[in-house]
Formats: sequence, structure tokens, C-alpha cells
Amino acid sequence: MLADPESAIDVACGKNGAVGGIGPGKGYVDVSTVDVATSKLINEHIKARGALFLEAPVSGSKKPAEDGQLIFLTAGDRSLYELVSPLLDILGKSRFYLGEVGNGAAMKLVVNMIMGSMMASFSEGILLSKKVGLDPSVLVEVVSQGAISAPMYSLKGPSMVKSQYPTAFPLKHQQKDLRLALGLAESVSQSTPIAAAANELYKVAKSYGLSDEDFSAVIEALKAKSQDTA
Amino acid sequence: MLADPESAIDVACGKNGAVGGIGPGKGYVDVSTVDVATSKLINEHIKARGALFLEAPVSGSKKPAEDGQLIFLTAGDRSLYELVSPLLDILGKSRFYLGEVGNGAAMKLVVNMIMGSMMASFSEGILLSKKVGLDPSVLVEVVSQGAISAPMYSLKGPSMVKSQYPTAFPLKHQQKDLRLALGLAESVSQSTPIAAAANELYKVAKSYGLSDEDFSAVIEALKAKSQDTA
Amino acid sequence: MLADPESAIDVACGKNGAVGGIGPGKGYVDVSTVDVATSKLINEHIKARGALFLEAPVSGSKKPAEDGQLIFLTAGDRSLYELVSPLLDILGKSRFYLGEVGNGAAMKLVVNMIMGSMMASFSEGILLSKKVGLDPSVLVEVVSQGAISAPMYSLKGPSMVKSQYPTAFPLKHQQKDLRLALGLAESVSQSTPIAAAANELYKVAKSYGLSDEDFSAVIEALKAKSQDTA
Amino acid sequence: MLADPESAIDVACGKNGAVGGIGPGKGYVDVSTVDVATSKLINEHIKARGALFLEAPVSGSKKPAEDGQLIFLTAGDRSLYELVSPLLDILGKSRFYLGEVGNGAAMKLVVNMIMGSMMASFSEGILLSKKVGLDPSVLVEVVSQGAISAPMYSLKGPSMVKSQYPTAFPLKHQQKDLRLALGLAESVSQSTPIAAAANELYKVAKSYGLSDEDFSAVIEALKAKSQDTA
Repeated sequence: MLADPESAIDVACGKNGAVGGIGPGKGYVDVSTVDVATSKLINEHIKARGALFLEAPVSGSKKPAEDGQLIFLTAGDRSLYELVSPLLDILGKSRFYLGEVGNGAAMKLVVNMIMGSMMASFSEGILLSKKVGLDPSVLVEVVSQGAISAPMYSLKGPSMVKSQYPTAFPLKHQQKDLRLALGLAESVSQSTPIAAAANELYKVAKSYGLSDEDFSAVIEALKAKSQDTA
Repeated sequence: MLADPESAIDVACGKNGAVGGIGPGKGYVDVSTVDVATSKLINEHIKARGALFLEAPVSGSKKPAEDGQLIFLTAGDRSLYELVSPLLDILGKSRFYLGEVGNGAAMKLVVNMIMGSMMASFSEGILLSKKVGLDPSVLVEVVSQGAISAPMYSLKGPSMVKSQYPTAFPLKHQQKDLRLALGLAESVSQSTPIAAAANELYKVAKSYGLSDEDFSAVIEALKAKSQDTA
Repeated sequence: MLADPESAIDVACGKNGAVGGIGPGKGYVDVSTVDVATSKLINEHIKARGALFLEAPVSGSKKPAEDGQLIFLTAGDRSLYELVSPLLDILGKSRFYLGEVGNGAAMKLVVNMIMGSMMASFSEGILLSKKVGLDPSVLVEVVSQGAISAPMYSLKGPSMVKSQYPTAFPLKHQQKDLRLALGLAESVSQSTPIAAAANELYKVAKSYGLSDEDFSAVIEALKAKSQDTA
Repeated sequence: MLADPESAIDVACGKNGAVGGIGPGKGYVDVSTVDVATSKLINEHIKARGALFLEAPVSGSKKPAEDGQLIFLTAGDRSLYELVSPLLDILGKSRFYLGEVGNGAAMKLVVNMIMGSMMASFSEGILLSKKVGLDPSVLVEVVSQGAISAPMYSLKGPSMVKSQYPTAFPLKHQQKDLRLALGLAESVSQSTPIAAAANELYKVAKSYGLSDEDFSAVIEALKAKSQDTA
């Protein structure tokens, strides 16, 4: 899956891009995660050639992909959606058809916005528990049994406690999605103070050189560093 | 379960409080949620009478209580913990022994801090999805299938979409726990910008008169209100 | 002064824009406030025609403009800067030459970012003082005498206390500048949590329909509204 | 001037405290900065001895104190206020009488809350300007000429640019005042997201070991540190 708008446009519409060989009777399914505007742009290019277009960004990263547990958030030509549904069912565990092009991208961004804030909040909890003398591994266990348990916490928590961040979803991509989500929120004047605060933490983590680590490395942004007033 | 420090101290140490009838060979198990200092204070009173003390705040509100799904976060006298464990197993689904008095209260606050931030973030997502033309009910469904799915989201999401907040955990208690958690974080100089931003939203919700609604009513704090420059 | 990138590009490079009549031996001084990229784009167009370019956004709004108290933040062709300096001295009270094109825009955004946060913080103070039973007018007076006194506070404070916001600098422009500044900060991975939190308040104020009021109307975003769970 | 509630209570009411030698016909003027509750407590002790009480926290730190530029924020017994006014006029440049005991403390906290947020915002601006290739000293100069110019910025800016923080007002005291102000805001359900975000930065700075540096050292909390995932 392609991670940014530029790559997606290049793959779809570039010199050797998909659009070159496309035409009436054909269809293009884009599973990359892009912003709403980029998705609409690709759609226009495809439509200009007389072909069908379906955006189909996926929710889920490395582990879900390997396990066939991806969720497809599709939008665009309904007939193409119906045509590829059997294929999507093999690749993933569920699929949503969300209407006009751009809605898949928007849904993906909203989900990832929540995810980014949740991970930042979880990081606060792990560090706070440790600082007050609790065992952060026990916190991860307690969380896993209650109303706020989430697969992500159970999957990432144990390694976060050990300051390890094997990359499933790169931190720079999480930060990019937060940025795009904040842009989306701003376009409709929706206040999102939690996401805005979370985004700042991912920015700090990037400035620590953690862009290519897993996004759970955002916890590093909350750790006290030794003074260095260079 | 008692919701604030004053009530807990009164019940335990007040004129007709538990301490009055307590003494050597007896024990006091406190399942209320209080801050660390209050729990230690009650412990001192109990100890002065020669009795045993176990703090045992629970994680889980109305629904888990009815279903016997509470989680006990205990700390204090280990022998008392072992004595009451069979009883705790009937009332709840799991129990943790966390060491010295105060650790149960601290663990509870950390868990509820994460919970408060998660709910605020989820609220942002619901409102943003709606504002950009998506169906927020579909967002709730998508979230429920992925890495960030949490029982709390599935339980509260559908009613939040309908602007309904039947009280399981009062908003004022969530705000109180955030305040106490922020105090705990400050006492150990742990930065918690997400919780701080979330706390501001619960304060806004309280100023809207939503203190006794469910804490999921924090979503109201993020809705645009018509101008009223009184 | 033009308030947004699109207007600036249109005026400079549009069908009847300045570029049309420009060429070698001529120069273009742009006093509009745009983002760095837009300023560079206009510069390229001007340069392609063989003319000189100087970006010269101003710090200061209505009142300073009337009083000849504007501050010019210029960048671009130094020879053009020197040529127009006498003119700038008549229009404003001071001028800075900041090097390559884009630096004027960047400096303006940084200044306005601080301004936006300061106004949001001042708003918090006014409302808090009132809520705890102090006279907010006295707060404005106390502030005006100490280390944090600023002309902006003395100018806007008295009307803010009366919930009046005669427009000198529209709120939507302040929010736009915060957005652009946050984008600038993100491009260099600089954490700016205060500006991010302030931006959320201006977004809330916009959602209240206050876009065309003075930016001091951001105080409305911090006032408790009566519940309206429509 | 005493910096915290405990010191103030000890000096006033401790074993060798002022209350010991006080009685009818005498008065006690407290120029320390404490929270509202502490000030009221001292007042009660003084009143119980039949003496008069005036709280008189000052706005202004080292430099203003040396220059006789302090501002007294008094509250309590009006007759005592009138009695000591000539003395206050010698020590400071102005004085305010704010009514009942606690109002002086509250006013001081509101002013210092704004101050803390302003310094954090200024820090963001200095670092952002530098990161995008501007000269932060020029930013300090530009700020000093416009609507947001403040004596504090002109005084601290030049040394902040050089990463020097000669202590006039210790960072730990600024953080304490933010904490107390946030507590005050919470007691009246006033949302203060800017102050909450600023407080987190001062907490980070404290965790860097900067408690005794000047509060302008909060800028260090916004600097990227090299990764240290210990």
C-alpha cells in the first residue's frame, strides 16, 4: 500500500502509470491511503479515460494484512465495488461502501486520527504508572480486561514497556494522517483539541529521529530527557 | 461505590463510621475510588485500631457490575487480600494485588485517565465524520472491527450518535478522575498533554450542565453552539 | 492588503494582474500576507519577466495603518528594497530586510502565531477573573502595568470585557495565520502545542459564526453555552 | 517574598510566627504569593487574635522589585490597606484593593497564568523562527515594535536566544502558579486549554532539571533532544 499522495498519483497517473493502459470497460481500484483531494484527482484522471474507479483504502497494517483481517473502506463506482467484492472478501475480513469518491479516504483519516490519539494517551498512562511506582506491564494487563481494552493496546503495550518499537505502521505515516485529519477538521470547522495535542507529540517524536519506528514510539516524546541546553 | 474522598473518609472514619467498630482481628476492605492520599489516610486510621486494611477500587461501572465483570485493583494488607479473594472472585472477573496502600487508587486513576482521553478522542471522530458527510454510525461500526475497537466504543457509540447519554459513569466523576490523575502526574513531573486537553473538554461539558449525564456526553463540548454573546 | 494566497496570486499573476505590465527595469512590491510557497510562486512569475520582486508583508492592522505605525517585513531583491525604503518609511514606522523571498512571509506568520496564542491566553484570564468574582476590568488594568503589558491587551481588553469585538483584524484571518504557522512548524518538525491549542479555539469561534468579528472574539469560544443537544 | 503556601503558613502561624505576637490594634500584611485557601486560612488565624489582615501579593519579580516597580494586589481589611498605602507607594509603583481576602491571591494567579502561557508561546516563536532559517534576534526585535510587544519579551528574549536563563522568577514557581490557576479554573468550571498546554511544558522543563532556572527556560521543553530510549 502506498503511503502518500505523491506516490499514489505517480503510480496511477505517472508516465508508466495505470492510467496509460486504462480505458472503457476497465476499472482501477486504489488501495493506497491518500487525502480526499488526491483521491478525487485520481478519480478524474481515470474517468477522463472512460474507466471506472474505486478508492479502497484499508484499515489495518502489517499484522492484519498477513492474517487477512484488513478492512476495506471503499467509495466510488458502485458497479466496480460489486465486481471486486469477492476479491476484497479474500484479502480482508470486511468491506464498507461509503458513496462518493473521497469518503473512503475521509473515513480512513478519521479512524487513524482516533488511533493516533489513543496511542498517545496510552503512552501517557504507561509512563505515569511507571513513575508512580506501579508496574506498567500490570497496567497493560488491567487495561486489556476492561471497557477500554483494544487489540492495539494488547499488541503494542508489552513492547512499549520495553522501549521497543518494531515497525508495523511507521510513526511518520501516523503523523501524516493526523495532519491530514486536522486539515479535514479545519475545512469543516470541527474542533479537535485532542488530535491537535497528539499531533504535537508525533512531531516531537519525529524530531527525535523516530520517523521510521513504529508509531507506538510516540511514547518517547513523553519521556524526560537529560538537559542539553546546546 | 463511593465516588469521592470526603464520602470515603466519612464512611470509614466518621462518627458512625466503620472504624468505630473495628479492632484487632478485623479487616476493612474499601472499594471506593479515592485519591492516593485519602486511601493512605483511611489506612492509617484503620491501622491505629489494630485492624487490617485493603483498598480495592474497581475498574468498571454499571454494566460490568451487573454482569459480575468488575476488576478489583487491590493494595494493602496481603493477608486480608488472600482472605477476601474468594469473595472478590464472585463479585468480579479478576483481581490484582498491587502492593502498598495507594497503588490501587493510583492504578485506577491511570486507567480512568486513559479512558477519559479515549472517549474525548472518539467524540472528535464521531463529530468529524458527520461534518464531512459520513455516517457516524458507520464509523462506530468500522472502529468496532479494527485494532482500536474497544468495548466502551461499541457500548456508547450508538447512543452518542443519537445525542443520548444514559448515565453509567457520571461525567463529573470522569472529570474528577482526570483532575486527580493530572495531580498525580504533576507530583512526579510526568507530562500528560492529552489528558490535560481532555480534562478541559470535560470542564466545558460540566459548564454546559452535563455533570450528571454519562461521561460520553463530553461530545457535547465539541459541538458548535449558536452564538450567545451575553 | 490582501488576505489570502489566492487573491495575491490573482492580483499579481492573473489576467489583468501586475505581471502583465511588468518587465526588465521594473519592480513589484507585494504587501499582502501570504504563505511562504505563494510568495515564492509570485516571485518566480515576476522574475520570469525580468523584473525585481520584494515581498513586504506588514505587521499591524487597522489602527497602526492609520497611524503610520506599520512594520514592514521585507525579503527578496535587495536593490528594490533600497529603492522603496524611503516610501516604506513614510507608510510605516520601521522596516526589516530578511533575505530571500519567503522570509518575510515566514516572519509575519511567526509573529501572528504568537499574537493568536497571546489573545487566547488573555481571554482565559479575563473569563477566569470574572468567574472567581474579580472585576475583569481591573485585571486588564493590572496587566497593563506589569511585565506582560502589551499594546494589544490595552487596546482590546476593555471591549472584550464588554463582549464587543469591533473588527480590526478579522478572526478568520487570525485562524488562517495560525493554520499556516502550524503548517510551517510541521514542515520543520517544531513542536508548537500552545499554538495548536489556540488554533482549536479560533476554529470553535469560527463555528460560532464569528469569522468576520475581530479576532479578540475568540474569547467567546471559552464561554459556557447553554446546553443544546440538538 | 515567600513562594509557597507552607512557608507562608509557617511564617504567619508557626511556632515563632507572626501570629504569636499579634493582637488587637495590630495588623499583618502578607506579601507572599499563596493560593486562595491558604490566604483565607492565615486570615482566620490573624482574626482569631483580634488583629487586622491584608493580603498583598506582588506582581513583578527581581528587576521590578529593585526598581520600585512592584504592583501590590491587596485584599482584606480596608482600614489596614489605607494605613499601609503610603508604605506600599514607596515600595511599588501601584496598588489595587480588591475586596475580600483571597481576591489578591486570585488576581495574582490569573496574571501569572497569562504570563506562563505568553512565555511558552514566545518560546515557540523563537524556536520556529530559527528552524525556518530566520534570525530569532530579529524576531525579538520585530515583536518589540508591534502590538504584542511586552516588557517581558524584551527583557528575556535576547538571553533566551542565547539559551541563557538567569533566574529572576524560578521556573518551578511559574509551574506552581499555573497549577494553582488551573485548580482555580477548575473550581469554577472555566475552560483554560492554553494554560493547560503551557503547564505541560513547564512540567517537561522541570523533568529536565530546570526547576531553579528562570521560567524562560521553558523554551528548552520545546527543543528536540537526541534520542535516548533508555
